Amino acid sequence: MPIHPDTGADAELLRRFRDRERTALARAISLVENERPGFEALLDAVQPELARARRLGITGPPGAGKSTLTAKLALEYRARGETVGIVAVDPSSPFSGGALLGDRIRMGGISTDPGVFIRSMAARGSLGGLATGSREVADLLDAYGFDQVITETVGVGQSELEIADAADTTMVVLVPDAGDSVQAMKAGLMEIADLFVINKADRPGADRLAQELELMLHLRRGEGEPGAWTIPVLRTVAQTGEGVSALGEAIDRHTEYLRESGELAARRRRRLGERVRGVVDRELRRLVWERAGGERILRESLPVLESGAESPYSVAARIVRAVGVEKGE
Amino acid sequence: MPIHPDTGADAELLRRFRDRERTALARAISLVENERPGFEALLDAVQPELARARRLGITGPPGAGKSTLTAKLALEYRARGETVGIVAVDPSSPFSGGALLGDRIRMGGISTDPGVFIRSMAARGSLGGLATGSREVADLLDAYGFDQVITETVGVGQSELEIADAADTTMVVLVPDAGDSVQAMKAGLMEIADLFVINKADRPGADRLAQELELMLHLRRGEGEPGAWTIPVLRTVAQTGEGVSALGEAIDRHTEYLRESGELAARRRRRLGERVRGVVDRELRRLVWERAGGERILRESLPVLESGAESPYSVAARIVRAVGVEKGE
Repeated sequence: MPIHPDTGADAELLRRFRDRERTALARAISLVENERPGFEALLDAVQPELARARRLGITGPPGAGKSTLTAKLALEYRARGETVGIVAVDPSSPFSGGALLGDRIRMGGISTDPGVFIRSMAARGSLGGLATGSREVADLLDAYGFDQVITETVGVGQSELEIADAADTTMVVLVPDAGDSVQAMKAGLMEIADLFVINKADRPGADRLAQELELMLHLRRGEGEPGAWTIPVLRTVAQTGEGVSALGEAIDRHTEYLRESGELAARRRRRLGERVRGVVDRELRRLVWERAGGERILRESLPVLESGAESPYSVAARIVRAVGVEKGE
Repeated sequence: MPIHPDTGADAELLRRFRDRERTALARAISLVENERPGFEALLDAVQPELARARRLGITGPPGAGKSTLTAKLALEYRARGETVGIVAVDPSSPFSGGALLGDRIRMGGISTDPGVFIRSMAARGSLGGLATGSREVADLLDAYGFDQVITETVGVGQSELEIADAADTTMVVLVPDAGDSVQAMKAGLMEIADLFVINKADRPGADRLAQELELMLHLRRGEGEPGAWTIPVLRTVAQTGEGVSALGEAIDRHTEYLRESGELAARRRRRLGERVRGVVDRELRRLVWERAGGERILRESLPVLESGAESPYSVAARIVRAVGVEKGE
């Protein structure tokens, strides 16, 4: 049962979606991305059709060549006869939609292939936040029937956690000349990477970066259990396609490892839990800010806040009370 | 009135805090950072003592030298006889606390000065999120009486929005060799910067970067109103301290502009609104996940989620209902 039973799923849209009409997929994604009435009912309806696609997360610093690598990897899967859905999340431009077109152009060759679907999402300040929204779009691509679903994000800070939670396999892309940036990001990236890729590996510094990564991975492996996944460090030149086949094979090996070790089920379980959390938090925000009049109370309280007559904590308490929650344990 | 009237502020701690005991400041920050009982009551109590400090936000990509620049700027303020509180937020290492010590060491010279207080915060997956928490720590530094409160964050993606919301003046630090990174981040950074700083300006590429920035700023200024702030592009070499005095003066000019234009009041009003939002969302999450048993329901639902017998949307609806909210309208 959807959260808003008053707004059911659009039956006609759902039928066309299940008939694999591409326009229905596009409409479904817009519905979900903009959180329009019925979007959760639609997602609820397609749940049984999920978990067929392999979910790959690609992250790394800006300028690492993630989009190009994503495009080349998509070509690789297409050559195998597999279909590919891509969600390109670009939180580096929270205000402009400027990155969207750029992404599409860079992915050029694949953008006219009917076996590939690309959707760019700009980071917006929506009630639901980007994390849950981009995962729900990935769900739609999965339910629609794409064999591979790739989510590409700029990775610095907390988005790393999010991409790792959303994917079966997480690939971290670095470049030789990133210098200090890599240094600064290593701690977090080490924790989420299932594979490291040194892209633009024809540039100077690739060897040094590979050695550094291998050393850090080796130090960590010291504590590892037998049978654990050994995180590989791969090299690619996405522009020329060099190393992309080998990368595809490494991803396959990781998928196999996930299946055999039971880790795949564990990751999908964690993902389900995270989805529930995201949906609950989004719904609560909608309840308090939209339905219970939180926005109005806040707007009306700005003068007393400004004069210092009331503190933000006191106004917040009034807004929480307006939702009528029962505090009971 | 605090949100949790059952847990009042620690009167003894509050007294010592107001007496400017440094150990009380440290304890107050820990209380707030870890969201321990009474933390909101404490923040509520110090609200009348706020808005004296000048709040500066420093952001930019990893490796731009933000910490060194922060330290040098702090020395500059100290030379004027002003005290400085620093909140160093490092979301690039969400898992490890590894960055904390590093930050302190890099800030070396100032870390033993009693007129300077440095607090590093690691990005954690707390209920409240990092944004509200780091601002509340900045509030404490303000209420304690520091003249300058500096918040330093790694800036890529959504944290930019957050830092801009939290500061009077936002300074974006770039480096000449950041190449593609800068390109990728420009869109968002353009929107939030009150000042641009090209650090490591003795490196090749500084001129080109400065020209690019000036051009983009010039294009934007085309639409600007008369009397609007002209965003300067400054150059520093934080290591040697070159350009730091001029930077300090530019920040002063911006503060003066904010005061005269009425923008300072507008920014502080926006900040109060954002604080209310953050506190409400945190409180709702606490209510649903801790008090209303959301965690328990989710845990117990994992088997049906995994088997596909129930969808995440249906489980989420059950959890929202458990809070007992009145949907109103």
